[in-house]
Amino acid sequence: MSDNTNDAVVVGIDFGTLSGRAVVVRVADGAELGSAVHEFTHGVVDNELPGTGERLPPDWALQVPSDYIDVLKTAVPRAVAAAGVDPTAVIGVATDFTACTMIPTLADGTPLNELPEYAGRKHAYVKLWKHHAAQPHADRINALAADRNEPWLARYGGLISSEWEFAKALQVLEEDPEIYAAMERWVEAADWIVWKLSGSYVRNACTAGYKGIRQDGAYPSPDYLATLNPGFADFVSEKLDQPIGQLGDRAGGLTAEAAAWTGLPEGIAVAVGNVDAHVTAPAAQAVEPGQMVAIMGTSTCHVMNGDVLREVPGMCGVVDGGIMAGRWGYEAGQSGVGDIFGWFVDTSVPATYAEEAARRGLNVHEYLTELAAAQEVGEHGLIALDWHSGNRSVLVDHELSGVVVGQTLATKPEDTYRALLEATAFGTRTIIETFNRAGVEVTELIIAGGLLKNGLIMQIYADVTGLPLSVIGSEQGPALGSAIHAAVAAGAYPDVHAAAAAMGNVERAVYQPDPDRAKAYDALYAEYVTLHDYFGRGGNDVMRRLRAIKRTAVTR
Amino acid sequence: MSDNTNDAVVVGIDFGTLSGRAVVVRVADGAELGSAVHEFTHGVVDNELPGTGERLPPDWALQVPSDYIDVLKTAVPRAVAAAGVDPTAVIGVATDFTACTMIPTLADGTPLNELPEYAGRKHAYVKLWKHHAAQPHADRINALAADRNEPWLARYGGLISSEWEFAKALQVLEEDPEIYAAMERWVEAADWIVWKLSGSYVRNACTAGYKGIRQDGAYPSPDYLATLNPGFADFVSEKLDQPIGQLGDRAGGLTAEAAAWTGLPEGIAVAVGNVDAHVTAPAAQAVEPGQMVAIMGTSTCHVMNGDVLREVPGMCGVVDGGIMAGRWGYEAGQSGVGDIFGWFVDTSVPATYAEEAARRGLNVHEYLTELAAAQEVGEHGLIALDWHSGNRSVLVDHELSGVVVGQTLATKPEDTYRALLEATAFGTRTIIETFNRAGVEVTELIIAGGLLKNGLIMQIYADVTGLPLSVIGSEQGPALGSAIHAAVAAGAYPDVHAAAAAMGNVERAVYQPDPDRAKAYDALYAEYVTLHDYFGRGGNDVMRRLRAIKRTAVTR
Repeated sequence: MSDNTNDAVVVGIDFGTLSGRAVVVRVADGAELGSAVHEFTHGVVDNELPGTGERLPPDWALQVPSDYIDVLKTAVPRAVAAAGVDPTAVIGVATDFTACTMIPTLADGTPLNELPEYAGRKHAYVKLWKHHAAQPHADRINALAADRNEPWLARYGGLISSEWEFAKALQVLEEDPEIYAAMERWVEAADWIVWKLSGSYVRNACTAGYKGIRQDGAYPSPDYLATLNPGFADFVSEKLDQPIGQLGDRAGGLTAEAAAWTGLPEGIAVAVGNVDAHVTAPAAQAVEPGQMVAIMGTSTCHVMNGDVLREVPGMCGVVDGGIMAGRWGYEAGQSGVGDIFGWFVDTSVPATYAEEAARRGLNVHEYLTELAAAQEVGEHGLIALDWHSGNRSVLVDHELSGVVVGQTLATKPEDTYRALLEATAFGTRTIIETFNRAGVEVTELIIAGGLLKNGLIMQIYADVTGLPLSVIGSEQGPALGSAIHAAVAAGAYPDVHAAAAAMGNVERAVYQPDPDRAKAYDALYAEYVTLHDYFGRGGNDVMRRLRAIKRTAVTR
Repeated sequence: MSDNTNDAVVVGIDFGTLSGRAVVVRVADGAELGSAVHEFTHGVVDNELPGTGERLPPDWALQVPSDYIDVLKTAVPRAVAAAGVDPTAVIGVATDFTACTMIPTLADGTPLNELPEYAGRKHAYVKLWKHHAAQPHADRINALAADRNEPWLARYGGLISSEWEFAKALQVLEEDPEIYAAMERWVEAADWIVWKLSGSYVRNACTAGYKGIRQDGAYPSPDYLATLNPGFADFVSEKLDQPIGQLGDRAGGLTAEAAAWTGLPEGIAVAVGNVDAHVTAPAAQAVEPGQMVAIMGTSTCHVMNGDVLREVPGMCGVVDGGIMAGRWGYEAGQSGVGDIFGWFVDTSVPATYAEEAARRGLNVHEYLTELAAAQEVGEHGLIALDWHSGNRSVLVDHELSGVVVGQTLATKPEDTYRALLEATAFGTRTIIETFNRAGVEVTELIIAGGLLKNGLIMQIYADVTGLPLSVIGSEQGPALGSAIHAAVAAGAYPDVHAAAAAMGNVERAVYQPDPDRAKAYDALYAEYVTLHDYFGRGGNDVMRRLRAIKRTAVTR
């Protein structure tokens, strides 16, 4: 490990929904020396197609691949400059990306939207993770898989998402067959950016498994795909299949072109692609079975390594090497968390609160948090269900919606706010208990993401789950995780486990559950479970019916 | 009916919670010629006792009787002046009052708080209708009555309220026996004011029945009362019993003292006392069986005459002559209506809405109403339970609380506002259907009270109930109702039926149910009923448990 003893650095690049962030990290100890952010010029394209003015249908969300290259050209050199290091000190680069974000390309990786003949075709663009217009296709994928008892279905908690590779590809085939025919490769953006950096198209084990339905070395069969649509039979062999790279592997060396974009030395290691949530686990030193990382932002993603394969109801997926090579990677999720709190603050808090918060120099979240923190458990008399954005784990039902029970004429905004915070904690406890029951025990909860800054939320999660809460020691968790993978790809450490130990950063057991509060929350959690099962498991399908009534009403 | 043919007038006086209003009404046609309001000097005494600074316990609500006399001295002469009539044209006066509002007095009607030795004792004051500190006493009254299978219990939907005469008296006995001993009469304010006007203490059939548990000519037995508390055995014979006057009867002639206060001629007819809600029925010409009047304000009171006696589950009460002499008077109620909308506007609407409303010259209610009115039925995707202030009819459970189901990140304030409006309409439909099932059919809904000004609420009630909505043609319904009784007491009409026909004012079928919307609401009402029964009839007693948890939490 000669490189650890000198000033060698690596660059981790985190591609988010609206921007890309590059961070320069010291290989020896993981110190974050400098960073820079570049906002995507086109952001999320969900309104009209660039250059054409064509209005996009509901639930569409596209991106423009050149925005990703701009991150390489701008954020990377700026981060190196900010770090004050010589570019020749950089020994490796790695990336993480949103997923499942898909790019239709030619065989050489050229995105179809960059060809003049397809620039005006919406299916030629990147389908961002939150493109939700392939739901009918996902529904058929699931119905047929269940019907045929496809063995891979249980690896995804019983449901393939409309966000994933097959549903999005089937939409292209059926809505624009010409683009589908022109699309020689259907590439995860996580792999495309590595292709652009290294010249090598290597499919990373993480997205191939979680988003690409690759299990036990195989994809859904041509027979199954032909039943979905005869034109889809050879989708895997023609457009999807590609050698798999394990996380932390070297995909190739930095090309001359990419060296020119970034200012980094040609030929340095480029790591296999990765996903923002999953790459955060080693950054938080969550490498052992039982250490669940919750990346808490607008939504929450839960990732955890396991040494056994279990089929956990309602998980997003379990993938061999999905988080670390050689272990089973489990993923679960809550589709609404911070965005529920944001919605509440935007729509449900009166002017008097905004004024008082401003007077005190706080934002409304901080002011509500302060008021809510003064309450005893149960004092507000409320219980809520955190399904304002549907439920991913463990019910996997996006027709579900929010509930608040117990409001009176004395209920104040901070009461409901706290009830919503608690509801998301109950949602996390539901996931943890489901993993425990399936034999994949959760022993520690490690928090990453923007919400870790809110001490009240953290304490509530500790009290509700009864688990000590550790917190990641970096505000740039995904980029730090990528840097760890860059160091491994460069050979500075033998594996991600060792690199995480040296470069990762976590504060252990920062929040301890309080026994009295934990006991009080047990009673409220029992109420949550009762309502969860009543509204979510068929006791009363009112939420589905309300959605149907709404859809009928708006088309009246 | 000689008096009908000339310019004879009557004075109706409506005693509310915070003020008294006098209205001068022409006997011939009910024209409202002038009115005046006097605010009570002491308002609602719920903080500290006048003159002593003693802090009142929670749930106490007192008043000061001299405030009522001030209304006679100020509002009556001002209303006569405003009407521009000669006081000698006034042939009768009648009053209505909040109920159950109770005054402890000497045998001559002197309120105990006016005696220097008792002026510092809180039990010497008027217990206003919303004094809720006698709940433990009411609980014992109900438990014992149920245990003994007392025949009168079913006449009150199965529950005696803590607001009523017996619970409040039992509290006096047990908390201040000296005041109880000094209290020679326990007088409804509705009767006390008539006593002060006419010199005659006549107990009106309405409050004696609804609030005083007088059924079939009898009160709860000494044996029953002695079991509650041995000192309570002779409560009825010693302090409560008094000759009954039917509504519209002449209680006596205006005394010289009262003539001096009011400027009205000595000796003119003073009518038997009445209650604000009940007196509104003839003002709205709702005199026939099946015509239900809903007085919609912060809460809603439903009154309806019937020609049969039925025990309707969850009604407030059924009383012989309780609304009109010779008919069974039914009463039901929704404990929270306008106050739920007010709570929502005060606590749950963001600054941007308040600003836009102000810019448009609207208040926030008006602005939300405008936005909500643009929606199709079901477009908001929500269903709510209107129990933020508990549920009076038909569940009679003040431990219940509010529910909103279906909120998403796209839910806007006007969505929830409309869902709350609709929830109260579903609550009214629940009451109507309960009456119908009990064999007391509701054929017309007549609206009085402040909410009738909101056309959206009115149309929703018509569409939800499927009934044509009539609206009272007076903004001073109770005072007009009192004036009608004054005219009858003065002999200008043979009975209230005839007087209501001439003097009452209603616009028939102003709002017609729309068949399409009514059908759409049938589906939402079915959801309401399911949730109503789940949360309200034992499917899930989470609301009671949340209240218990809250009580424990705040005493921690």
